[in-house]
Amino acid sequence: MSSINETHDLSLQSWVESANDRNVDFPIQNLPFGRYRPAGSDEGFKVGVAIGDMILDLQGTGLADSPSMNALMALDVEKRLQLRRAISRGLALNSSQQKTWSKLLTPQCEAEMAVPCRIGDYTDFYTGIHHATSVGKLFRPDQPLMPNYKWVPIGYHGRASSIHVSGHAFRRPQGQTKAPDATEPAFGPSRRLDYELELGYFVGQGNQLGQPVPIANAEDHLFGVTLLNDWSARDIQAWEYQPLGPFLSKNFATTISPWIVTMEALAPFRAPLVRPNGDPRPLPYLDSEANRNAGVLDITLEVLIQTQRMATAGIAPERLTIGNAAAAAYWTAAQLIAHHTVNGCNLLSGDLLGSGTLSGPAPNEAGSLLELTEGGKKSIELTNGEQRTFLEDGDTLILRGWCERPGAARIGLGEARGTVLA
Amino acid sequence: MSSINETHDLSLQSWVESANDRNVDFPIQNLPFGRYRPAGSDEGFKVGVAIGDMILDLQGTGLADSPSMNALMALDVEKRLQLRRAISRGLALNSSQQKTWSKLLTPQCEAEMAVPCRIGDYTDFYTGIHHATSVGKLFRPDQPLMPNYKWVPIGYHGRASSIHVSGHAFRRPQGQTKAPDATEPAFGPSRRLDYELELGYFVGQGNQLGQPVPIANAEDHLFGVTLLNDWSARDIQAWEYQPLGPFLSKNFATTISPWIVTMEALAPFRAPLVRPNGDPRPLPYLDSEANRNAGVLDITLEVLIQTQRMATAGIAPERLTIGNAAAAAYWTAAQLIAHHTVNGCNLLSGDLLGSGTLSGPAPNEAGSLLELTEGGKKSIELTNGEQRTFLEDGDTLILRGWCERPGAARIGLGEARGTVLA
Repeated sequence: MSSINETHDLSLQSWVESANDRNVDFPIQNLPFGRYRPAGSDEGFKVGVAIGDMILDLQGTGLADSPSMNALMALDVEKRLQLRRAISRGLALNSSQQKTWSKLLTPQCEAEMAVPCRIGDYTDFYTGIHHATSVGKLFRPDQPLMPNYKWVPIGYHGRASSIHVSGHAFRRPQGQTKAPDATEPAFGPSRRLDYELELGYFVGQGNQLGQPVPIANAEDHLFGVTLLNDWSARDIQAWEYQPLGPFLSKNFATTISPWIVTMEALAPFRAPLVRPNGDPRPLPYLDSEANRNAGVLDITLEVLIQTQRMATAGIAPERLTIGNAAAAAYWTAAQLIAHHTVNGCNLLSGDLLGSGTLSGPAPNEAGSLLELTEGGKKSIELTNGEQRTFLEDGDTLILRGWCERPGAARIGLGEARGTVLA
Repeated sequence: MSSINETHDLSLQSWVESANDRNVDFPIQNLPFGRYRPAGSDEGFKVGVAIGDMILDLQGTGLADSPSMNALMALDVEKRLQLRRAISRGLALNSSQQKTWSKLLTPQCEAEMAVPCRIGDYTDFYTGIHHATSVGKLFRPDQPLMPNYKWVPIGYHGRASSIHVSGHAFRRPQGQTKAPDATEPAFGPSRRLDYELELGYFVGQGNQLGQPVPIANAEDHLFGVTLLNDWSARDIQAWEYQPLGPFLSKNFATTISPWIVTMEALAPFRAPLVRPNGDPRPLPYLDSEANRNAGVLDITLEVLIQTQRMATAGIAPERLTIGNAAAAAYWTAAQLIAHHTVNGCNLLSGDLLGSGTLSGPAPNEAGSLLELTEGGKKSIELTNGEQRTFLEDGDTLILRGWCERPGAARIGLGEARGTVLA
């Protein structure tokens, strides 16, 4: 742990001056990975490390020998830690690398970001128990939380091809919907388009088919965390989801932040897994002391909206929700890895696991409009007077996340920004 | 169409003599694509064309300029047809290519096959209406077929990483199950392991995010067909599947045949889509005259079992089921493409769409043990006296498929063979 602590030292400063502001997302204690190229170029994307408002070309430093993020993600834990220490030392004030590395910097505002790695498979979980309960009430008033919820980390496979990085704009999906009183479905654009506030967990080392990952080793297979907006068309979902789950209601777009904040960067922000008294103890394959004591990530999460009218009038995005991942998730990332592989399913480096919507216990901590508007029954009034039940064309949604704790540097997750087009 | 007909001429013979037997899967009228390398080598896999009992190295002929199957799949329809004609002419009796191409042949029995392409996303549908009805009865006796079934081609995302090619052996999955009368779930190996007989449709040209594929063009985006065994752990499925669908009950293994039989090869085996009187007409985005007239594939499908005891005693595999895809599927492959993309979801070359279990209308045409044994209540007796309700360790399941019609050459789909390990 001393080697992680070295990279988290609050007194560490960087020769990249913008990294030394206490309020930035990317101080030298963070060092998230992303893929970038000069905006407007057609170069291949390179692996970069965010530092302040700049990006460091990792391959240029000699610390990576390929432009493949997936190769980097497949490193074992000790090698990852060595890499982190080497990057930290090279970017630290008075580093002997300053002269050569300073030529490897690109301003973030001049870069185009890509999805940070090749995502082979994307799985979306449903760990937000407050979300599962409130949404369950809308779909199944008699039984909001299924009997399996407190035993099984419920998850399903999502669509990898339509995952895009922050800045993405996509068309409102069309599809079949059926009004409760209609005898037949109708076809047209979704009228109940929503966002979902999630964390994404990237898989580092994979596992072989037929070789489950024990919970004790599960964190070794986690590479890092991103922000994830699981856009959802509620009206399409309600009509299509029985019996095999959501499909076209989800797979038209998923927006993630361009930076993967590593598990090493998040080390100071671990918290115990607290469950209500009387809840069942997880089955042994999902239970470990380390997971109970520190399996949770203490990350503040925020959702903001900027409508087309706000953007035109130069009004800044307005907060819809703020909450904390630790208070929202019933299952930890380690439990998701152990569950996903217990049947022998193989995870590959670069696979993405969504947390599910991370709504807090209070109504204003809800991570979707479905919850904030009670199923569309209660509209939200924005400061400029506009009303929303679901998303309108031109709306931009912005997810942000960060960790703060006395004695530790602020670790930001950047943002995941997406816009709904007509 | 004359150019397709040329490659289907029943009198066409090949200088590869084994291709001229009327009963082979791979006569010169078929020409399916796969990826192979010499067994036991560590060479990269190459794209090959099956001809009789041999494989032709496609890149060696100069007709492909890369070892990437996905690049080949991305060709437009006209280029694919040109390629088919060129391969057909080169392999035809008296071809001037015989001398050079004969050096490009590898016997199939000396080759190791790979999954035929990089499968980005795998989607499994539920088009088998007889299957949906009988399984629905077991899970939901009060409502076997959901109200959406005849309107929505029901589908969900599957797991790409655990798709393996024929010959694969995998461990029986473990997981949570709950007996109906138990108060808590238990953990252990699945006791209700099953197979599912499906076709797999490979995507050829993809579509851009936000650009739905109209049904009129949907077939242009289909590359070809494979056999697919969607192994299923029924006891895990029953406990986990609400509300988001099957997950660990399916993603531990999927077995496909190594050969992609192209849509061009299947051209003589098209049939009309026949639906019961009174069923709703599909919404316009799922309906076209061409689809009604010839959207269906007339493929005979067979499932065989060889238990460990049978294998040890040298007893040949025994048939469990024989049926026809045309009689089983409520939705065509073109409808699946149109539906999958109607919300803007992007398909990529190499993506795989499963048909869902293709059970025929008669009980002995069922494509799973769940149906054949009425939910495990009625065991099957094999000729050697063994009984089966669900699969036992050491069981090998073999899926086969072929097309036959007077005046046309037999087109075989090869086989998808998989074995359950302890």
